[in-house]
Amino acid sequence: MRLTVAQLAKRLGAELAGDADGIDRQISAVGPVEASGDSDVTFITDDKHKAALHKSQAAAVIVAGHLDGLNKPQLIVKNVDAALIEALNVFAPRLKPATEGIDPAAKIAQGVKLAEGVSVGAGVVIDDGVEIGENSVIGSGCKIGENSRVGENCRLDSNVVVYHNCRLGNNVVVQANSTIGSTGFGYSFIDGAYRLIPHNGGVVIEDFVEIGANCCVDRAKFGNTIIGAGTKIDNLVQIAHNVVIGKCCLIVAQVGISGSCRLGDGVVLGGQVGLADNVEIGDGTMVGAKSGVAYDIAAGQRFLGSPAIDKREAFRIIGLTMRLPKMAEQLKRLNKRVEGLEAAKDDKE
Amino acid sequence: MRLTVAQLAKRLGAELAGDADGIDRQISAVGPVEASGDSDVTFITDDKHKAALHKSQAAAVIVAGHLDGLNKPQLIVKNVDAALIEALNVFAPRLKPATEGIDPAAKIAQGVKLAEGVSVGAGVVIDDGVEIGENSVIGSGCKIGENSRVGENCRLDSNVVVYHNCRLGNNVVVQANSTIGSTGFGYSFIDGAYRLIPHNGGVVIEDFVEIGANCCVDRAKFGNTIIGAGTKIDNLVQIAHNVVIGKCCLIVAQVGISGSCRLGDGVVLGGQVGLADNVEIGDGTMVGAKSGVAYDIAAGQRFLGSPAIDKREAFRIIGLTMRLPKMAEQLKRLNKRVEGLEAAKDDKE
Amino acid sequence: MRLTVAQLAKRLGAELAGDADGIDRQISAVGPVEASGDSDVTFITDDKHKAALHKSQAAAVIVAGHLDGLNKPQLIVKNVDAALIEALNVFAPRLKPATEGIDPAAKIAQGVKLAEGVSVGAGVVIDDGVEIGENSVIGSGCKIGENSRVGENCRLDSNVVVYHNCRLGNNVVVQANSTIGSTGFGYSFIDGAYRLIPHNGGVVIEDFVEIGANCCVDRAKFGNTIIGAGTKIDNLVQIAHNVVIGKCCLIVAQVGISGSCRLGDGVVLGGQVGLADNVEIGDGTMVGAKSGVAYDIAAGQRFLGSPAIDKREAFRIIGLTMRLPKMAEQLKRLNKRVEGLEAAKDDKE
Repeated sequence: MRLTVAQLAKRLGAELAGDADGIDRQISAVGPVEASGDSDVTFITDDKHKAALHKSQAAAVIVAGHLDGLNKPQLIVKNVDAALIEALNVFAPRLKPATEGIDPAAKIAQGVKLAEGVSVGAGVVIDDGVEIGENSVIGSGCKIGENSRVGENCRLDSNVVVYHNCRLGNNVVVQANSTIGSTGFGYSFIDGAYRLIPHNGGVVIEDFVEIGANCCVDRAKFGNTIIGAGTKIDNLVQIAHNVVIGKCCLIVAQVGISGSCRLGDGVVLGGQVGLADNVEIGDGTMVGAKSGVAYDIAAGQRFLGSPAIDKREAFRIIGLTMRLPKMAEQLKRLNKRVEGLEAAKDDKE
Repeated sequence: MRLTVAQLAKRLGAELAGDADGIDRQISAVGPVEASGDSDVTFITDDKHKAALHKSQAAAVIVAGHLDGLNKPQLIVKNVDAALIEALNVFAPRLKPATEGIDPAAKIAQGVKLAEGVSVGAGVVIDDGVEIGENSVIGSGCKIGENSRVGENCRLDSNVVVYHNCRLGNNVVVQANSTIGSTGFGYSFIDGAYRLIPHNGGVVIEDFVEIGANCCVDRAKFGNTIIGAGTKIDNLVQIAHNVVIGKCCLIVAQVGISGSCRLGDGVVLGGQVGLADNVEIGDGTMVGAKSGVAYDIAAGQRFLGSPAIDKREAFRIIGLTMRLPKMAEQLKRLNKRVEGLEAAKDDKE
Repeated sequence: MRLTVAQLAKRLGAELAGDADGIDRQISAVGPVEASGDSDVTFITDDKHKAALHKSQAAAVIVAGHLDGLNKPQLIVKNVDAALIEALNVFAPRLKPATEGIDPAAKIAQGVKLAEGVSVGAGVVIDDGVEIGENSVIGSGCKIGENSRVGENCRLDSNVVVYHNCRLGNNVVVQANSTIGSTGFGYSFIDGAYRLIPHNGGVVIEDFVEIGANCCVDRAKFGNTIIGAGTKIDNLVQIAHNVVIGKCCLIVAQVGISGSCRLGDGVVLGGQVGLADNVEIGDGTMVGAKSGVAYDIAAGQRFLGSPAIDKREAFRIIGLTMRLPKMAEQLKRLNKRVEGLEAAKDDKE
C-alpha cells in the first residue's frame, strides 16, 4: 500500500501543516522517529522525541499540535494514538484472510454448531456440544473440549487448547500455544498421597479479552475462573483456578495469579508479578514489575516490591537499603565517639 | 446428576444430623460456603467459614463434627477433604470418555506397541519403539518420540510433546502444551561460539506424577532427569537437565529448577521460586513463593526470600527493612545528641 | 555404539596415558565422575572432581593433562569441553533421521518453496509465500505463517508456531511448543477501552540461534525483533516486541525481556531475570538470576539484585541486610549509652 502524504492526511482526518512541498511524497510504512526512512510517516506522542524529529528522515509526522520550525509536512490530529493505529492498519502487511469453512483435516464432533463465516484450520479437534459464533477463526492444531462456547469474531491461533465447559465471549483473541481450562493445582493430602480435588467449574472469558501466547488459565473448582471484558494479557501468564479479573486490566508477561484472587477493574500488573492465594486488588491499582503481593491492596494504589508496599515508600526503602554500607559506617563511627565520651567521663570520675 | 441430601449422605458414608426436614432436598452441585445456592451442598474444612455458614443458602453441609444451632442438614464424616473429593466426583460434569483405539488421523510408526484400551487422538505422531500401557489416553496433536514409554492409565492432553527415550510411569497426567524431554541448556564456549553439549540422557517420570500445562522438563546430559512418584507440578514450571525430584513434592506455578538440583521427598516450592544449579533441598522442606535459593537447604526447614533463609528470620529482616526509615531517623538524632555531648565536653575542657 | 578405550582415544585425537592394561576395555557411554560405571568414559573439566576420580568406576577419563597415581587409562586432549562433546556424539542414542519430504498429512500452500532435503511432519501447516532452506526439519504440528522464511539445516520441533513475515537464518533450532512472531503487548487506551497497536513488523532470528521449549518471541511494531547469531535461549523465555539481542548471548530459563530492550554481544541473563522497557545492556555484561533491571547497564559488568546493581556491591548490601537485626540491637544499645552519658552530664550540671 502506498499513499501520498496528502492522501494519508485525508484518510486520517488530519489537518495538513508545515512543508507544503512534501505533501506529494509517497508513504509506504509507519516508523519511529529515529528509524524512519523517506517513505515512512512517523509520529510524536510525547515531548521526548521532538528534538530527534528534526534529524528524522521521515517524509511526514503525525502530531497533536503544530510544531514550529520543522521542514516536514505535519498531519495534525486530535488523538495521535488513534491516528497511529489507523495509519498502522493502512500500511499493515496484506495477509490472506482465513479460509472460510472447515478444513478437511479437522475433526468436528456431531453435535457441534458452527455459525456462518467460521474458519476451522487443519488438525483442529472440536468435541461434542461446542458452539462457535460468526466469523470466528480457529487456527490449525487447536483443540476445543466438550460443551465449550466461542463467541463471534474470535481468533484462536494455532495449537491453542480450550478444555471442556469454557465460555469465550465475542472478539476474544487467544494467541498460539495457550491453554484455557486446564485443571487447577488443588490437592488434598489423604492417606499418604496427594489426591486431586476435582475441578467441576469452568472458565469464562468475556468480550474483547486478548490473551498472549503460551498462557495458562485454569478452570475453577466451583463456579468459574473469570476474565472481565476488555482485559489484555501478555505471554506466559499463569491464571489459577477461581481467579476473578475485572474489566480492562493489563496483565504483563510472566505474571502469576494464585487461586481465588480477585482483581477489580483497570488493574495493571507489571511483568513477573506474583500474587498469593486469595489476594484482592482494588480498581485501578497498579503493581510494579516483579512485585510479590501477599495481602489485599485497596483501589487506586501504586504498589511495588516483594512484599509489595506503597510505591513511594518502596523507593524510599530501596534507597535506604542501598545506603546500608554508609549507615553501618556511621554506626561504627558513632560507637567510637560514644566510647570516647565514656572514656572521658571515666577519666574524670 | 441429582441426589437428595439423604442419598448423598449414604453415598459419602456420612452420618446425618441437624435439620431432619431438609434431607429430601435435591442436590446437584458442590459449592463454597458463600456462593452456594439451595441446590448445592457445601463443606467446612476450617473454623474460618463457620460464621458464614449460618447465612449460606446451601441445602446441606459436609462437616467433621456436629455444629450446634445450624438449621441445615449436616453430613458428618471423618475426613472432610476425602468426602469433598467424593462429592465433587459425584456431581462432576459428565464428559464423553475418550474413544478407544487409534484415530485415523494419527500417525503411528511400525514398531509401536499399544496396549488394550489405549486411545490415540487425531494428529498424534508416535515414533518407532514407543510403548503405551493399558487405558492410557493420548490427546490430539501430541508427539511421542522414539523409544519413549508411557505406562498404564496415563493421560497426555492435547499438544503435549514427549521427546525420545523418556519413560512415564503409570497414572501420569501431563496437561496441554507441555514439553517433556527437550534438550537442556548446556553449552561450551569453543573457538568463539557456543556449542551444544549433547544430551544423551532421558527423563523418568514416576507413577502418579501430575504435570500442569505449558511446563518444560529437560532431558539429562547423562542418566536421567527424574520426577519422583506422586509429585504434583503446576503450570509453566521449568525443570532443567539432570534434576532429581523426590516423591510427593508440590511444585507451584512458574517455578524454575536449574540443572542437577536434587529435591528430597515432600518438598514444597511456592510459586515463582528459583533454584540455582546443583542445589540440594532436604525432605519436607518448604520454600516460600518468589524465593531464590542458591545454597543447599537441610530437611524439614521453612525458607523464604532471595537469598532464601529461615522463614522466621526472613520475616524479621523484612520487618527491619520496612523500619529502615525509622532507623535512619534514629541514627540521625543519635548523631545530634552525641554532637551535643561532645560540645558540652569541649566546653568544659 | 561400543569402542575400546584405544579406539575412542584415536577418535578424539587424544594421547593415551596411565593404565596401559585398560585400553582394551569396552566403552558404551559418557558419564559424570561419581555416577560412571565400568563401561563409561568420564571427564575432568575442573579440579573439583579430581579427588572423586580415584573412586570412580569409569573405564577411562578424558583430561587436559596427565594425572599422577591414577590407575585408569587417561585420554589427554587439548580441550576437554570439545572432546566431551565429541565423545557424547559418538555414544549418542541412534535415532532415525527425519523422513525427507512432505508428510501426506501436512498442508502446504501453493506458493511455498521447499529446498532439497526438507522434511515436513504430519499436521504441519505452511502458508503461502513461505520458503524453507535445504535439509531443514519441520516437526509435526508446526504452523508457519505467510511469507516467513526458514534457512538451511534448521530444526523446528513439534508444535512450534511461527507467525507471518518472520525470518529464521541457517542452523536455527526451535524446540517444541515455542511461539515466534506473536503480536506484542502494545495497547492505547482510547475512548474507554484498550485498542491494540497493530504490529506491522516481524522477527529476525539469525544463524545458529537455539531457542528452547515453550518460549515466546513477539513480532515488532515497526522493523523487527532481532535475535543475533549464535545466541542461545533456554525454556519459557519471553522476548517482547522490538527487542534487539546481540550475538552469542545466553538467556537462561524464564527470563522476561520487555519491549525495545537492546542487548549487546555476549550478554548473559540468569534465570528469571526481568528487564524493564527500553533497557540497554552492554557487551559481555552478566546479570545474576532473579535480578530486575530497570536502567541501562554498561559493557563488561556483573550485576545482581532487584534493582540490579554491581554484583560485589549487591553482595555487600545483602550481607548488611542480613545483619539488620544486629544493627538494630547496636542502635538500641548505643541509645542507652548516650542516655547514660546525658544523665551523667545532667547530674553534674
